[in-house]
Amino acid sequence: MAEFQVIGRRVPKLDAWDKATGAAQYVHDLVLPRMLHARILRSRLPHAEILHIDTSRAKRLAGVRAVLTGADLPGLRFGFRKDNLPLKVDRVRCLGDEVAAVVAVDEETAEEALEQIRVDYRELPPVFDIEAALRPDAPRIHEELESNLVQLSYPFEHGDVEQAFAEADVVVERAYTLRYVTHACLETMGCVASWDPQGGLTIWSTTQVPFLYQKDLSEALGVPGDRIRVIQPKLGGGFGRGLDIYSMDILCALLARQIGRPVKMVYEREEEFVACPTRQPVQFSVKSGARKDGALLAREARVLLDVGAYVSWGATTPYVMMATVTGLYRIPHVKFDSLMVYTNNPSTAAMRGYGNLQATFAVESQMDELARELGMDPLEFRLRNANRPGDLTPQAMTITSCGLRECLETAAREMGWAGPAARRGDGRRLRGIGFASLFHVAGGARVYKSDGCGAIVKIDDFGKVTLLTGASEIGQGAETALAQITAEELGVPLERVQVVNDDTAITPWDVGVHASRTTFIAGNAARLAAADAKAQLLQIAARVLNEPVERLVVQEGVVRSVTDPRKELPYDKAIRAGHFKEHGEMIVGQAFYDPPTEMQDKRFIGNISTTYTFGTQAAEVEVDIETGEVQVLRVVAAHDVGRAINPLGAEGQIEGGLAMALGYALTEELVVRQGAILNPNFVDYRLITGADMPRTTVILIETDDPAGPFGAKGIGEAGAICTAPAVANAIYDAIGVRVTELPITPERLLRAIRQAGHG
Amino acid sequence: MAEFQVIGRRVPKLDAWDKATGAAQYVHDLVLPRMLHARILRSRLPHAEILHIDTSRAKRLAGVRAVLTGADLPGLRFGFRKDNLPLKVDRVRCLGDEVAAVVAVDEETAEEALEQIRVDYRELPPVFDIEAALRPDAPRIHEELESNLVQLSYPFEHGDVEQAFAEADVVVERAYTLRYVTHACLETMGCVASWDPQGGLTIWSTTQVPFLYQKDLSEALGVPGDRIRVIQPKLGGGFGRGLDIYSMDILCALLARQIGRPVKMVYEREEEFVACPTRQPVQFSVKSGARKDGALLAREARVLLDVGAYVSWGATTPYVMMATVTGLYRIPHVKFDSLMVYTNNPSTAAMRGYGNLQATFAVESQMDELARELGMDPLEFRLRNANRPGDLTPQAMTITSCGLRECLETAAREMGWAGPAARRGDGRRLRGIGFASLFHVAGGARVYKSDGCGAIVKIDDFGKVTLLTGASEIGQGAETALAQITAEELGVPLERVQVVNDDTAITPWDVGVHASRTTFIAGNAARLAAADAKAQLLQIAARVLNEPVERLVVQEGVVRSVTDPRKELPYDKAIRAGHFKEHGEMIVGQAFYDPPTEMQDKRFIGNISTTYTFGTQAAEVEVDIETGEVQVLRVVAAHDVGRAINPLGAEGQIEGGLAMALGYALTEELVVRQGAILNPNFVDYRLITGADMPRTTVILIETDDPAGPFGAKGIGEAGAICTAPAVANAIYDAIGVRVTELPITPERLLRAIRQAGHG
Repeated sequence: MAEFQVIGRRVPKLDAWDKATGAAQYVHDLVLPRMLHARILRSRLPHAEILHIDTSRAKRLAGVRAVLTGADLPGLRFGFRKDNLPLKVDRVRCLGDEVAAVVAVDEETAEEALEQIRVDYRELPPVFDIEAALRPDAPRIHEELESNLVQLSYPFEHGDVEQAFAEADVVVERAYTLRYVTHACLETMGCVASWDPQGGLTIWSTTQVPFLYQKDLSEALGVPGDRIRVIQPKLGGGFGRGLDIYSMDILCALLARQIGRPVKMVYEREEEFVACPTRQPVQFSVKSGARKDGALLAREARVLLDVGAYVSWGATTPYVMMATVTGLYRIPHVKFDSLMVYTNNPSTAAMRGYGNLQATFAVESQMDELARELGMDPLEFRLRNANRPGDLTPQAMTITSCGLRECLETAAREMGWAGPAARRGDGRRLRGIGFASLFHVAGGARVYKSDGCGAIVKIDDFGKVTLLTGASEIGQGAETALAQITAEELGVPLERVQVVNDDTAITPWDVGVHASRTTFIAGNAARLAAADAKAQLLQIAARVLNEPVERLVVQEGVVRSVTDPRKELPYDKAIRAGHFKEHGEMIVGQAFYDPPTEMQDKRFIGNISTTYTFGTQAAEVEVDIETGEVQVLRVVAAHDVGRAINPLGAEGQIEGGLAMALGYALTEELVVRQGAILNPNFVDYRLITGADMPRTTVILIETDDPAGPFGAKGIGEAGAICTAPAVANAIYDAIGVRVTELPITPERLLRAIRQAGHG
Repeated sequence: MAEFQVIGRRVPKLDAWDKATGAAQYVHDLVLPRMLHARILRSRLPHAEILHIDTSRAKRLAGVRAVLTGADLPGLRFGFRKDNLPLKVDRVRCLGDEVAAVVAVDEETAEEALEQIRVDYRELPPVFDIEAALRPDAPRIHEELESNLVQLSYPFEHGDVEQAFAEADVVVERAYTLRYVTHACLETMGCVASWDPQGGLTIWSTTQVPFLYQKDLSEALGVPGDRIRVIQPKLGGGFGRGLDIYSMDILCALLARQIGRPVKMVYEREEEFVACPTRQPVQFSVKSGARKDGALLAREARVLLDVGAYVSWGATTPYVMMATVTGLYRIPHVKFDSLMVYTNNPSTAAMRGYGNLQATFAVESQMDELARELGMDPLEFRLRNANRPGDLTPQAMTITSCGLRECLETAAREMGWAGPAARRGDGRRLRGIGFASLFHVAGGARVYKSDGCGAIVKIDDFGKVTLLTGASEIGQGAETALAQITAEELGVPLERVQVVNDDTAITPWDVGVHASRTTFIAGNAARLAAADAKAQLLQIAARVLNEPVERLVVQEGVVRSVTDPRKELPYDKAIRAGHFKEHGEMIVGQAFYDPPTEMQDKRFIGNISTTYTFGTQAAEVEVDIETGEVQVLRVVAAHDVGRAINPLGAEGQIEGGLAMALGYALTEELVVRQGAILNPNFVDYRLITGADMPRTTVILIETDDPAGPFGAKGIGEAGAICTAPAVANAIYDAIGVRVTELPITPERLLRAIRQAGHG
C-alpha cells in the first residue's frame, strides 16, 4: 500500500528472535538471590468444612521456612465479588481450593512439606448442577449469601419480541450446551515476589493486566498500591487467564514478606489444569423467528452459566454474549437474560472471546437452522440480514466500519460455495460446507472505570524512538503493531523504534490486555504520542530549514518540505540540532487515549466500544457417519480488521484463534465429574496441534475504521469466535444432523446421528 | 525550614537499604545465561614496537572461545582525541597497554590463556619526564603527531599582568608539584555486553555518563548509536573514572559479538590500579602580587600536565584550573597557560575536582604565603579579596550567589582562629591552623555539545510518582535529592516518589555525572517536569473542587484552596478523578533543562556555568618535627551549597570529598618509576580510612542561588578541593615551613624542614 511506509508490511514479531533463540526470560526463568520456593496445599474435597489443620510436622521439616494457613492471614477477601480468600478458613468450596501454603529452600522440599500437613474435614453436600444449585433447598456455596444465584445479571429487551414471534413465518427454538475448556497456556502461571525493607513489593507475574493486578494485589494485601511494582516478563500465553489475581499471587507476596526473602511460585502442569480457571460452561437457550422473505424478526436468549465456587472477571462475559444476541445480524426485536450460578465445580474466568464463543455457537447454529427451515441458502439468509455501516444495534451500539457482507461473500467465493448440498461424497464419508459470522467489540469494552491507555514517545540523539506504553505484550504481537504505528506516524523506519511495556513503575497506565483492545486503544495512544513528538520535531526542523511547519513532512526518516525538494534534513539530525545548542530541547511526546465510548450501565445500552469487528469463517468437513469422526478439510477465514497494521501478525492471530476454536469445536473438553477434572494433562486434554490443522486461508478485509489508528480494529479474539458453529453447520450440510453440544466428539456425533434417525 | 515540606530534611539515601542489605545488584553481581568471561593481556613494557603476537597456544586451550589481537579489529580509534586503539597494533606506549583479549568459559581459563600468548617486542626509548618529552629529539609517543605536545591549550590573559606585578608591593612566585593519585573505587571497573540477533547491543557498565558512553561506544564499534542500550546497575564509586570509555568496554562488546554470547569483563584490584586512569600529575607555577593594603593585584600561572600515553576527557581539566586561577578571589590582572604532554607514563583522566585540587593547592598555598609576606592575617587577607555576589570574574563568569565571606568567617569562628601563631605547642609537637577556600562550577561546565538533562514525571492512579531522569546515581545521593526536589515541587510526601535512572533506552538524555552538575541541572529538570505534572493535576482538581486553579496549592499530598479551607482533595484522588471518567486523562509532566550558560570557546570567556560554589576549609594539625609526621586534629568545612536539599547527603558528600582530599594531602600516591606503578594495592597505596579521620565539622551555608532548584548548587566535588592547601597552610602555621609538593609524607616534610633550616 503506497500510502503507508511501515504499516501494512509483513513484519516478524519484534521479540521473535529472543523467543526463538531462548534469550527471552520468562517468570519461570527468573532467579533472584536468596530466592525461596513455595507450593500450595489444595483441597481434595469439593465441599467441606475445615475442622482442623495440623502443620506442625511440615514446619519441622528441614528446609521449610514457613507454613501458612488461613488462620495466619488477615482475612482480606479478593476477587471480582470479593468472595474468595487466599487460604480458606472454615470451608472449601471446590477441588483445588487453597488450604495451606509452604515456602522452602526448593520446590521438592515444599512439596514434601505439603504431604506432612494434615487437614481434618467434615464433608458437606456438594452441588454440581446449575438447576439443582438454584433450588431453594440446595446446599449453599457461600453460606453468607441468600442463594447460589450470583447477584449480577444483564436483562435486556428491545422491541416487542412476543409480537414479532407471533408474526414470524418460521420460529426455531433450541438449547445449546457448552462445556469446560481451559486456556492451556504453554507457560504455566507463576510469580516471584520480593519486598524491599521499606515495605515496597516488586512482583514478577504472568498477569496480562499489570495495572489492575497492582490494584487488586493492593486490596488483597492491604498495602497501598503505590508500594507495588508489577513487572511482566515475557509471557508464554494469556488468553484471559491473566485477567484476575489468584490466591497464588497473594500467597507468594505474603510468604515473601513473612520470610524477608524473594519467593517464587510456579504451577506444575497438572496444577495448572486444576487451579487455573476455565471458560464458563453454559446452557444457551435461543429462540429466533424470521419472515418467509428471509427477514430476521426476533431473537430471544436465556443463558445459564456455571461460575464455579468463586466469581471472576468472567462474570462480565454475559455482557458480551448479549451483544452478539442483539447485534449479530440486523434484528429488530430482541430479548436477553442470563443467570450465573455458584456450584462446587471448577472456577471459571475470562477466556479468549469472553462469552462470545458460546453465544456465537448458539446464534449461528440457529441462523443456519432458520435458513434451512425457510428453505433459503444459509449464505443468502446471512447476507439478507447482515449488519451494515451506519447501523445502530438494539443495544445502541453504533456500527461505523463494517465489512460483514464482504466477509461473507469473500469466504463463500474462496470456499467455492455453490449452495446447500447435503450428503456430498460417497456413502460413508460425506462432505459439507458451513458458515458462521461474528460480531465482537474490536477495542475495549468499558467494563472497568477506565478503558484508556497512556503512551510516551521519546526520541534520543541517535533517532532511537522509545515507546513507553502501558499495553503488555502477551504473545499477541502488540509490541510489533504498536512499534509500526509509532514508526508510521513519525515517518521513521521501524527498526528505529523500541517498545518498553513491562513495568508498572515505568510505563503509563493501561487497563490491560483484554477485549481485543490493544491495537485499537494502545495503538491510538501510541499514534497520538508519536504525533506529539513529531510536532516537536517539526518545530525544530522548521527553524533549521527555514520553512513553515505546515510544509514539512517526515518520510523514511527524512524531514522534507513538500514545496521545496531541496529542503530536507534527516530527522535524527533535526533532533540533535534541537538538543545541541544553548537552551536545548528534547523530544518527548505523550498521550492518553480513552475511546469515546458510553455505557448507560444500568440498562446495558450504549456504544460500549467505538469499533466493532466482523468476520466470517467457512469450514469444509468430511464426516465419517460410521465412526462419527469429523475431519475439517479446510477453513476460510475472512475478517474485517479495519486495517492490517501487520498482516503477518493479524493472520497469525486469526490462525491461532482458529486453532484454539477447532479444539473447542472438536477435541477440547475438561471432563468434570463431581467437581473433579478427570483429564488434567495434555494426553487426555486434546489440543489441536499444528499437524491437526486443516488447510487454512485467512483473508483480511480492510474497512478503514474511522476511530482506529490508521483505520485498524482489534482482532485478538476474532479468529476464535465463529469457528465452532461453522464446523457444526458444515456437519449439518454434510449429513443433515444438527449438533448442539461441544466438543463434537465422535461419540456425541454418533449419538446425534442415531437420534436424528440417520446413519 | 517551615517554607519547605520535603527539602531541607535529613533523608537517608533511597538506595541505602538495598546497599546495606546486599540486595543492590552491581555489574559484578550480574550473571546472564550462557555468559562468558574475558581478560586482557597488557604490555609489560612502557614503549615498544610489537613485532609478532602468537596466540595459537592460547586458542587451543580448552575452554577458550576466542582470542583477539589488534590485527583482528577494524582499526577504529577512540578516546577524546581519537589517539587510542582497543588493542594496540604496532606499538605499545605505556605499561598496561592492551595487546590481546581472551574470552573463555571462566576467568581462570581466560587468565591461563593470557599466559599462553607470546608477544615479541622491540623496545623503544621511553620518555617519562614532561620537560624531556618536549625536547625536539624526544622519542615520539604518537609517531604520527608532530611532537609530544597535545594540541590543546587554554591561554588566557586579562588586564596587564606585567604592569600589575611592577606595581605590587609583594610578589611571590613558586612551583608546586602534584603527583599521581587514582580513584580507587570500591567496585572495580566492569561491563557485561550482550548482543541480540538483530545487531542491538545491551551493555551493563560502571560508566557514570551512560549517554556519552552510548555515543562513544557507537563510534568505537562503528555501530549506530540507536542500536546501543546502556544499563547502569548500582555503582560502587565513580569519581570521574567513568567519564571515558576504555578498551575494556569496546573489547567486551567485540568479543560478545564475535562469540554470539554475553561476555563479562571486570578488573581485579591490581588491574584496576594499573589500567584505570589517574589524576593528572602537574607542575603548577604560580606568581602572585599584592599591594601593602592587602589588595590582590595580579596572578600568573603556567601549568604542565603529564597526560600519559593517551588523552582522555581529563584534557579539559586545565579549563577548570584556569577558572580557579582567574576566579578564586577578586583579581584584576591575570594570566594563565597550560601545556599537556604525552609521555610513556600511566594515563590520566578526570577525577573528582577535575583539575581544581591541583590549582587550589597552588593558589591557596600562595595566598597564604602572600599574606605572611604582607604581614597580614591570612584570614583577613582572604576576606579582603573574597568574591562577592554580583562580581564578574576576568573570564566573564557572573557570580550571583556567593557565600565565600560567610564561609571564611564561619570556618574561622568554628575553629577558634585567633590569628597566626607559628609554633604553638611544645618543642617537638607543634600545632597550627590553616585555611583554604575554593571556587568551583556548581552545576555543569559546557564542555560537551549540551549540558542539559531531561526529566519525565508520571503519576499513577495510586499517587505513585515516577521520575524518569537521565541523571545517574553513582553513590553520590543524586537519586535522593532528585526525589526530594520532585516531591517538594509536587507537594507530595517523599515516599511516594521513585526514581528511574539506569537505562538509556528508557530515560531521557543527560550528559552524565560530572562537574557537580546533577543536583543543579537534573534537579532543575526534575522540578520543571514536576511543575508540569502539578499544573495538569491542578487543572483536574480545579474542576472537581470547582475552584480556580490559581487558588489551589498542593501540600503534603492534599490539594487545597488557599481561600476556602473546606475545599480540599487528596492529590491521588484528583488523579483518579481525571482518569476514571469518559475522556480520561493521565498525568505525565516533562522538561528539558539546559542551563543558560555561554561559552565563547575560542577565548575561554563566558559564563560556563550558571552557578558557582564557594567554601572554606580550616584544618588544625599537629606536626612532629622529628619524624615529619602530620596529624590532622580537626577540619572545619564551611560550604556554600546554595540550598541543602538533603543536609545529610550534602554533609556526606563534603565529608567524603574531604576524606579523599586528606589522602591527597598526606598519604595517597601512586609511586610511578619508569612508567610503572610500584604500589598497585591497598597496602602500599594508602587511602584515608574512617579510623584515620579527624574530628570534622561540616557547616552548610545557604545562599539561595537564583538559578538552582530551590536555590541549590552542586557540591559533589567541593568537599575535596581545598583540603590539601588548608593542611599545608596549617603546617606552615605550626612550623613555619612551606610545602609545595603532595602528598606531604613524613619524608618529604622532614626534607622541607631541613631545607628551611628548621627542626
